[in-house]
Amino acid sequence: MQGSWHTAPDEGRPLYDAVTGAEVARLSSAGVDFAAALEHGRRVGGPTLRELTFHQRAALLKALGQHLREHREQLYAVSAQTGATLFDSKFDIDGGIGVLLAYASKGRRELPNDTVHVEGAVEPLSKAGTFVGQHICTPLRGVAVQINAFNFPVWGPLEKLAPAFLAGVPSLIKPASPTAFLTAKLVELIVESGLLPEGTLQFVAGGVGDLFDHLGEQDTVAFTGSASTGAKLRTHPVIVNRAVRFTAEADSLNLSILGPDATPGTPEFDLYVKQLVQEMTVKAGQKCTAIRRAFVPEPHLDAVVEAVSARLARTTVGNPANSEVRMGALAGLEQREEVRRSLKALADAGRIVLGDPEKVDVVDADPDRGAFISPILLVADPDRAEPHEVEAFGPVSTVMSYRDTAHVVELAARGHGSLAGSVVTADPAFAREVVLGVAPWHGRLLVLNERNGKESTGHGSPLPALVHGGPGRAGGGEEMGGIRGVLHHMQRTAVQADPDTLTVVTGRWVQGAQRHETPVHPFRKHLEELRIGDTIVAGPRRVTQSDVEHFAEFTGDTFYAHMDAEAAAANPLFGERVAHGYLVVSLAAGLFVDPDPGPVLANFGVDNLRFLTPVKFGDELTVTLTCKQLTPRDTSDYGEVRWDADVTRQDGESVARYDVLTLVAKKEA
Amino acid sequence: MQGSWHTAPDEGRPLYDAVTGAEVARLSSAGVDFAAALEHGRRVGGPTLRELTFHQRAALLKALGQHLREHREQLYAVSAQTGATLFDSKFDIDGGIGVLLAYASKGRRELPNDTVHVEGAVEPLSKAGTFVGQHICTPLRGVAVQINAFNFPVWGPLEKLAPAFLAGVPSLIKPASPTAFLTAKLVELIVESGLLPEGTLQFVAGGVGDLFDHLGEQDTVAFTGSASTGAKLRTHPVIVNRAVRFTAEADSLNLSILGPDATPGTPEFDLYVKQLVQEMTVKAGQKCTAIRRAFVPEPHLDAVVEAVSARLARTTVGNPANSEVRMGALAGLEQREEVRRSLKALADAGRIVLGDPEKVDVVDADPDRGAFISPILLVADPDRAEPHEVEAFGPVSTVMSYRDTAHVVELAARGHGSLAGSVVTADPAFAREVVLGVAPWHGRLLVLNERNGKESTGHGSPLPALVHGGPGRAGGGEEMGGIRGVLHHMQRTAVQADPDTLTVVTGRWVQGAQRHETPVHPFRKHLEELRIGDTIVAGPRRVTQSDVEHFAEFTGDTFYAHMDAEAAAANPLFGERVAHGYLVVSLAAGLFVDPDPGPVLANFGVDNLRFLTPVKFGDELTVTLTCKQLTPRDTSDYGEVRWDADVTRQDGESVARYDVLTLVAKKEA
Repeated sequence: MQGSWHTAPDEGRPLYDAVTGAEVARLSSAGVDFAAALEHGRRVGGPTLRELTFHQRAALLKALGQHLREHREQLYAVSAQTGATLFDSKFDIDGGIGVLLAYASKGRRELPNDTVHVEGAVEPLSKAGTFVGQHICTPLRGVAVQINAFNFPVWGPLEKLAPAFLAGVPSLIKPASPTAFLTAKLVELIVESGLLPEGTLQFVAGGVGDLFDHLGEQDTVAFTGSASTGAKLRTHPVIVNRAVRFTAEADSLNLSILGPDATPGTPEFDLYVKQLVQEMTVKAGQKCTAIRRAFVPEPHLDAVVEAVSARLARTTVGNPANSEVRMGALAGLEQREEVRRSLKALADAGRIVLGDPEKVDVVDADPDRGAFISPILLVADPDRAEPHEVEAFGPVSTVMSYRDTAHVVELAARGHGSLAGSVVTADPAFAREVVLGVAPWHGRLLVLNERNGKESTGHGSPLPALVHGGPGRAGGGEEMGGIRGVLHHMQRTAVQADPDTLTVVTGRWVQGAQRHETPVHPFRKHLEELRIGDTIVAGPRRVTQSDVEHFAEFTGDTFYAHMDAEAAAANPLFGERVAHGYLVVSLAAGLFVDPDPGPVLANFGVDNLRFLTPVKFGDELTVTLTCKQLTPRDTSDYGEVRWDADVTRQDGESVARYDVLTLVAKKEA
Repeated sequence: MQGSWHTAPDEGRPLYDAVTGAEVARLSSAGVDFAAALEHGRRVGGPTLRELTFHQRAALLKALGQHLREHREQLYAVSAQTGATLFDSKFDIDGGIGVLLAYASKGRRELPNDTVHVEGAVEPLSKAGTFVGQHICTPLRGVAVQINAFNFPVWGPLEKLAPAFLAGVPSLIKPASPTAFLTAKLVELIVESGLLPEGTLQFVAGGVGDLFDHLGEQDTVAFTGSASTGAKLRTHPVIVNRAVRFTAEADSLNLSILGPDATPGTPEFDLYVKQLVQEMTVKAGQKCTAIRRAFVPEPHLDAVVEAVSARLARTTVGNPANSEVRMGALAGLEQREEVRRSLKALADAGRIVLGDPEKVDVVDADPDRGAFISPILLVADPDRAEPHEVEAFGPVSTVMSYRDTAHVVELAARGHGSLAGSVVTADPAFAREVVLGVAPWHGRLLVLNERNGKESTGHGSPLPALVHGGPGRAGGGEEMGGIRGVLHHMQRTAVQADPDTLTVVTGRWVQGAQRHETPVHPFRKHLEELRIGDTIVAGPRRVTQSDVEHFAEFTGDTFYAHMDAEAAAANPLFGERVAHGYLVVSLAAGLFVDPDPGPVLANFGVDNLRFLTPVKFGDELTVTLTCKQLTPRDTSDYGEVRWDADVTRQDGESVARYDVLTLVAKKEA
């Protein structure tokens, strides 16, 4: 907090090793000045971050990810004390590092090397084009307060930090108590790296005191945890009255559906069983994306229960440090009590077919001191309410049968909103019907089958490129989702202006803005010398019938609209023979290209090419090429230059418009 | 409600003509069954709408807009009773119709002729490409509850209805009491048109009773009105516990900044004055986007006050039916009392330089019975809190001075979040500094100057293509913004699948999915005959040095990378001479085109062309063209077909990938 480690003046309360029950840390936020911490983020962290471009922020995230990867063994060691096996720890720790690296990569590829993000197309707002609109996204001037859940003490903070940091917003991380010591270790490693600028990351373990009283309109809160805590925070008067952006991600009763085609003996049946067991046992089932409701066709209920039970029975529970152990402990004895309470309600509505909530064989650990529990499989009548509403946050799932597609779609909705669901089927038609039927209730849906089974990342894994969050019971929030997650930390503003002003505001040339015809051909300028609006006008070149016939013969493109007068006349769009579109852009390049060796290295692509008016024989083409956007690459000797190309005919009418993408060398390489 | 007009059993409470004070209607929602109304929307309206494609819904919106335009005189007549001049009425009524038509047009241009919206690119999630992701948006299965403000009784409901309808979600419209009789007239016209399917629009005037108790996770609430009512609704237990999407748009203290360049005598100075007066007097200042804070450079404060006062003094107040009248009445006597109360606080913090809250000369009306008030201009010290916090929702603005750009940016933030702001300047650099400085506090910003003054729609006009809403005090919501507004009514779901399944789910061919090489060339198929995945593989064609040299000579594109062996060798990307990218795509077209007259009418564009690998002399090119997306046009004899083009060389490596866009005729035209 505020650039230094703070030690609470009180004794705090003890946190325990989930396996041995030994005390591992003490927790307290006594004495923390939350108002000052928020101001530190706003006054020191925010301004520093906003000075950096998206690419510079991305580079820091990448370096941070690499630093953590190098030191991850330290995190694994502490993670074992939370009850996690090495596999669980990798899911949490390597997963979190993966989010940093993925955002670093997305930031460099999908955001400009600039501080303003331009969203969507320029909106024409007037006939003559002197008044246009464009949406820009700018970083919020507050602090992103991140309240995490106990089950992912590393992934949770990192998946929230990465998009906020990339957006240019400082973070204040608050972990859940039971596993706060692991998040503290993570923050220690981050601070040691020296990579993140002062004020861009603060961390407080323990209660949040009067933090919420000091939030302002530009702060955000991202909460992961129980629905009841979420509801309490969401209705805090400051959140409500200042319209503070609040996003919640809560546990949900996620489903997995076995398709009717996936009968016993099929690869999909096996994938279904294997995935269900995996989702039940990874992190001892303490995943907000874990499968709680397993829907299977009526005829295959017994086969599924049998196959799942057989696999579960082989799951060794115990000390995660022991390599034979497949499932570790819950995060603490309190968590185990909560799971047992929920199991009572579930068992009342159905029956336990495997496992005993009160009894478990453990390897290499004391079953009385560690928070161990056996995997529990239930079978229930899908018409009972409990399996759709009561979540046991541990290695617990309920198998239910469904009659047909409409039935399972209806059952899905009884969960009132989920983070993730899966459908295991090789039949795309069934997949379509189910996916479109249950999509309104889901943030993410996986279709699993033999075709993708080897490469699938599985039901329970949120991915940085995809939205994480779900409607209703799942909290109604959205996190990650690639650049979408970055925009949650930015204000979207519609800017209306004349094209010249908009060009300066956004740093991108806008149609209708001034062009600068410079004495030097723009292809002779290095990246640093080019200016937005630099223009070359070249032409005219007359397009003759013989040009068209020659091009047709040379390329083989003898399409009737170019070659057959009668057929072209019958074409509703042309009425007569016209030039090839590809001929038009080829001739345009011939006009605008400066042939000599120089800083332009390559034309690597074309975007949004539209042929607006047919080119007829005898038309004279002129091309106007204007420098539209510059994207220097910090790690490369060249950068990308996007040009606006406008090909016009003798009367000034545009016949083709498009963006030409080139790589241009730096002068100082 | 529920398909019929309901008459309340009680007497209701009277609503008054804002000009004459005469009773015009009675208001009551007694006896309405809100739970049944919501169910009617969900069970009848929603399913009907979801059967329609986006284009079909757009066509209905267009027809509705045309119907209302034909009958708008009836709306003008009722609108006069709300105190509105004809100009005000057009702002409200024609503005609302404009939103319908704009959404109809956006829907046809930017959404598919399908029921699923696909958002963003396919996300590669695995190395071999068997596992990919894509975001889809599906309509929420609930009702869009729309609670509108009194100041725009026509525009308000229509700007909320249009995006919800286009999304496939039925609406329940609830107008504010004072002007509910005008919204009732609007709904009457809509019902008479017979255009909207049963259950897609319901309307209730008066209290909302127990409506909120019956909301579910798939319903949404869009609220426009006071911050205090918004806060009450937002914290309703059902909204909180079911994570019902709630968006608010509240009044805000919007600013307008005069640039330092816009000295008296400049066109920008005049535009500033004219706009300020317009924003103060249109709708008698009852616009949530009106300018409340006018920031001007210190040296020009007196000149601005003088010029604005002179114009305001000429504003005739009175009966809006009288053509001499420029400003009508407030919506009612209660509103006037509220404005007077707010003015007391503002006057304490500054001074009134024009107008008298208690006294006004009126034309053609009784000043005691009508809700008239004079325009009031104040001057205040910007360091006082009131001008930034107290809103008088009438023809009231406060002029304040600022020292420099940093100062005005700091002052802007004191409004704690606004819907709209404007900067009047001809200086793009000043505009950039101010826009980027105040953007985090704004939903929309207008830069006004002589270049766009004639075509600008002005500070106070939200536009369908642009986001309407603002952070903090403005409610933190977003409406409109083109297709963004449609997505507020849809659930975004990340779908992970193999390419074949994803192709079927989204209705678009995804890279890696099966291709169908059919005996008939796909160019010989009409729109109805084409299937997603139809493919033609053509080639190979060898690219020789003489092809490249010939192409260079013919087009004039003698770029060194193609023609100069030594310079090409020095190029860090190529190392030797390579073929032109435009030659590659021209030859590819020569390979895949079927030349004879047929259903393919034209190639109207190319998207996302990327040259992935240089083509060297002697390489042999093959092109694979696959039908990717079909967009039939309901109003045309042809539709759009998007093809995936993949040009590979002899070793199978892709050298270019792009989308080819064609128009293809229907068989049954």
